[in-house]
Amino acid sequence: MMLLLRSLARASMTFRPGMGAAKDGGRRAMRKPKINTMEELSSAISVSRPTLSRYFQDPESVRSSTRTKIETALQRVDYVPNFFATRMNRKATGLIGVIIPYLNDLFYTSLLEAIERAAIAADYTVITQSSHGDAALEARAVEKLLSMNADGAIVAPLGASSDPAAIERLSANLPLVFVDSRPISMPDNADFVGTDNRQSIRLIVEYLCRTGPAPVFLRMPRLNSNSQEREAAYLREMERLGHEPAFVEAGGQQDSWDFEGFAYELLDRHFSHGTYTKATILCANDRLAIGAIRAANRHRLFRPDAREAPALRIAGHDDHPLSRYMTPPLTTVSQDAPAIANAAMRMLMQRVRADAPRDASAMEQTFEAALRLRDSA
Amino acid sequence: MMLLLRSLARASMTFRPGMGAAKDGGRRAMRKPKINTMEELSSAISVSRPTLSRYFQDPESVRSSTRTKIETALQRVDYVPNFFATRMNRKATGLIGVIIPYLNDLFYTSLLEAIERAAIAADYTVITQSSHGDAALEARAVEKLLSMNADGAIVAPLGASSDPAAIERLSANLPLVFVDSRPISMPDNADFVGTDNRQSIRLIVEYLCRTGPAPVFLRMPRLNSNSQEREAAYLREMERLGHEPAFVEAGGQQDSWDFEGFAYELLDRHFSHGTYTKATILCANDRLAIGAIRAANRHRLFRPDAREAPALRIAGHDDHPLSRYMTPPLTTVSQDAPAIANAAMRMLMQRVRADAPRDASAMEQTFEAALRLRDSA
Repeated sequence: MMLLLRSLARASMTFRPGMGAAKDGGRRAMRKPKINTMEELSSAISVSRPTLSRYFQDPESVRSSTRTKIETALQRVDYVPNFFATRMNRKATGLIGVIIPYLNDLFYTSLLEAIERAAIAADYTVITQSSHGDAALEARAVEKLLSMNADGAIVAPLGASSDPAAIERLSANLPLVFVDSRPISMPDNADFVGTDNRQSIRLIVEYLCRTGPAPVFLRMPRLNSNSQEREAAYLREMERLGHEPAFVEAGGQQDSWDFEGFAYELLDRHFSHGTYTKATILCANDRLAIGAIRAANRHRLFRPDAREAPALRIAGHDDHPLSRYMTPPLTTVSQDAPAIANAAMRMLMQRVRADAPRDASAMEQTFEAALRLRDSA
Repeated sequence: MMLLLRSLARASMTFRPGMGAAKDGGRRAMRKPKINTMEELSSAISVSRPTLSRYFQDPESVRSSTRTKIETALQRVDYVPNFFATRMNRKATGLIGVIIPYLNDLFYTSLLEAIERAAIAADYTVITQSSHGDAALEARAVEKLLSMNADGAIVAPLGASSDPAAIERLSANLPLVFVDSRPISMPDNADFVGTDNRQSIRLIVEYLCRTGPAPVFLRMPRLNSNSQEREAAYLREMERLGHEPAFVEAGGQQDSWDFEGFAYELLDRHFSHGTYTKATILCANDRLAIGAIRAANRHRLFRPDAREAPALRIAGHDDHPLSRYMTPPLTTVSQDAPAIANAAMRMLMQRVRADAPRDASAMEQTFEAALRLRDSA
């Protein structure tokens, strides 16, 4: 660890000289006068403080000639209206709260990125809170969004470990759309957007049964509604196709949001004992499959040169951004994160604008998944 | 795509009956009266509105007997003080702004998670904004944090593509700590916390030279200060060890934040032409190495059974959470994301509390990396 004053550190720095500095100098020369408060602004541009205040709450609330005068003057000064002051008395704060269960998961970051892009396009500010896999932090995030008077919220809930009172409180106080998975006790007036797990699991089970032995199912560690729905869909589909369903024995392994580590350790133990080494394993999500593939490779169970059946096959669910980079690349079904994000945003905007009042029937929208055939199955 | 009213959808839902509902019912019975405004609160608990207002701005500003009275009363009602109203006139808003360059990157999410945990412990609210790899969105994030009067900001800048005026504006108006990489034109009064790239690159180059052919370097697509510092460190170390430095030819490939895709396409082309197939490739970060390993496996260049040298070796930089799940598992040097996050938070708190005034010498803290020897090199 090194702690340096900048003067010492500068010597070893390697920036390309001049880059940025020229632009910088140019801007510095044209710098606008800095205005810190609305009072200063009022005297600088000769518009009364109450008028300015009304303008910042709602530009349409002042005469159009005044609006033009203010907007022309604002070009000439460096003034940032205070976010809190302009929003405190508004009916709408322009804030959308988003809660995701866990940050280090590229499916959730893909979803979040798409939500943020949709919000930017609709001129909303997104306040994101992560539950970090912890019900107390999820409840804390709920209180934060309530205290900020967010116009609405998009929530991917923890699931079984969520505090139902916190979820109910959020739902009672804000327009709310759940994404990805449903809370275990779904409030009556809340909307949901996600993947049609029944269709996605049917697709992959059907494919696996058509091309080799029927799959055993590797469950997600935490029971959220996806894990339950995918498990139920697996049972249903196996029955329909006349196969005996089977689950990978979890053997008391600790639940954790470290899905890759969970699957790796579990299957490493099984493969060491010679179990499942020639099975077809359908993982409830791709992060589990990434851990499973690593365990299989550690035991040299994928043998591209030895093509005699039955050989180990592993499949996943999600089309995680890195699943195509696995060896072998992962066969999976894709969730359409941008479509889910955009639909959630549209549904929330409908509620916020009260096109669909809070007490109207809750809406549900699910998207179909598509097969992504690669080499792992 | 399916759009259903909840009444229809309910039929096919698979929740475990009763779960949560019992708890829920229990809480519902004890529900506290809901108070929506400070006026309502004032009459409900017989404390004047100005006193309540002072209490929510700063609990220490009212007499201790009044404080006790208010706090006892607050236990009996359901009231959430408005986040904006209580912060508008405070010197400190309790907000820390964080800007990261890109969301779908598990190094940044690890950093973000550690920052959020540190902020929760210090009772701060983190407002995170992603630049989504776009300078205009980075500048928008800067304006957002300024308008919110955040107490300070922790910024991982885009780098070469950043708008220097936006970075300068943020630095001039808020206590600011840069993490991960330095902006191309570093403001004089800004602090920095990151990895000691000179040490980390020396460590991995030395190891690779000791155990096989000297490495060629695969640069990051975007030139941020890390890419420049790691490149310079590579040149220095190769010279010191008496080797000729060499860079993987980028052949005009488009810059992109999709690092895995960038490296995969580049090396797939090289391997198809038979170049670098027996090289030792040091990648500027692990996301590049993940793409490089996939390209190598596509061409069957890792042959665990054929041990004759020289064989292809690939090494990375970061210890990305998934690097251990690659096949072969990635040899790399680790960045200590939690240490960087905690140091950045401590440094920012020092500035915010004015223990270290804004015009004092800027501080720098860098952390050493550790070798993570796995099978890829």
